[in-house]
Amino acid sequence: MREAYHVELEQLAENLASMSLQVADAMERATRALLEVDLGLAEQVISDDAKVDDARAECEEQAYALLALQAPVATDLRTVLAAIHAAESLERMGDLALHVAKAARRRHPEPVLPDAVRGDFAKMGEVAVKLARQAEQVIKSKDVQAARTIESDDDEVDEIHKHLFTVIMDRNWDHGVAAAVDVTLLGRFYERFADHAVSVARRMIFVVTGKMPGYGPDELS
Amino acid sequence: MREAYHVELEQLAENLASMSLQVADAMERATRALLEVDLGLAEQVISDDAKVDDARAECEEQAYALLALQAPVATDLRTVLAAIHAAESLERMGDLALHVAKAARRRHPEPVLPDAVRGDFAKMGEVAVKLARQAEQVIKSKDVQAARTIESDDDEVDEIHKHLFTVIMDRNWDHGVAAAVDVTLLGRFYERFADHAVSVARRMIFVVTGKMPGYGPDELS
Repeated sequence: MREAYHVELEQLAENLASMSLQVADAMERATRALLEVDLGLAEQVISDDAKVDDARAECEEQAYALLALQAPVATDLRTVLAAIHAAESLERMGDLALHVAKAARRRHPEPVLPDAVRGDFAKMGEVAVKLARQAEQVIKSKDVQAARTIESDDDEVDEIHKHLFTVIMDRNWDHGVAAAVDVTLLGRFYERFADHAVSVARRMIFVVTGKMPGYGPDELS
Repeated sequence: MREAYHVELEQLAENLASMSLQVADAMERATRALLEVDLGLAEQVISDDAKVDDARAECEEQAYALLALQAPVATDLRTVLAAIHAAESLERMGDLALHVAKAARRRHPEPVLPDAVRGDFAKMGEVAVKLARQAEQVIKSKDVQAARTIESDDDEVDEIHKHLFTVIMDRNWDHGVAAAVDVTLLGRFYERFADHAVSVARRMIFVVTGKMPGYGPDELS
């Protein structure tokens, strides 16, 4: 039974790693759709979201099977529950990439973003995608050190997110209310994506090591 | 063992019901803080959020104990996992009420909301609080019919949320960008609170009946 447990847990971890890549790719494409005003890319992200939902359902079924058939206790039990939570966060990250893609589609062929904030979103997108890929790395490499830079990367997203507010609240903002509303919502989507990525990476570490790294209330909320 | 399982599940359900009331009260007070520009109420909500986090941790510990000691299978297992998911959503609802309270505090003594949207937020707050209380009712009364109006109530929040965009995008909006940004974020907090309330109510029905009502992808995302 112990061996079966570890084989099944390994499969579950592989599926979570694969989900991490799926949502990283979704956010990368959604960001390009946003910056390059590319309707085709936006449509791709929108139609691919169902696959993330399916992957989440599959992870949950694997976790249920593991709990029902192996009845793990102590750390093993917490590990499976961490995987269930990670799957939930990953699905939510897919939804947030979907929201970005939908914003790009809604304004097409007009660009959503004024030039003044394009660079900020390019950077936020880059870091958000990197965070999602770090979660995958933790699983693939079993190297929890790969997750070390997670906090500082997430701080970077928070800084850019805060900076965006100073840009749109500035008296020199001359792009009107509609653009400010778009920037506000999009900024929030990236910030939440990064928060969930941090949460997932930490839970991944737990799945691999059985130990949860310290965390503050905001990142897991 | 079956009897112990049901006693423990009953305690877990009671704690979830109590959490539902906690977050309903938090959102009610946060909304009053927002509408009545009441700093004291905002501070209360902000300092009370830690209690919601504690309650969630307690629910998770109860669920872990139940899984570890009773090793439930089939519907019983899914019921416990539904409770874990519900606790996560309830904690998130507490965070969203906290965000509303922080917005009220940030602008104090200025009101956050222009008069043009006060009525909309009063209504959204009322429905959001009602949704959270319905989750509690499902548990207390064991009457799943109490959850029947959940869909239409959530639709009402979505309608008001959409309406807010037409108000702030309108050429007659003369409250500037900062107020539009506040309204955008606050609208999103209420909408997400209501989504989570729907998700919780449905999971509560599952906890009580062992059957999950049908749901679309948006509500649980």
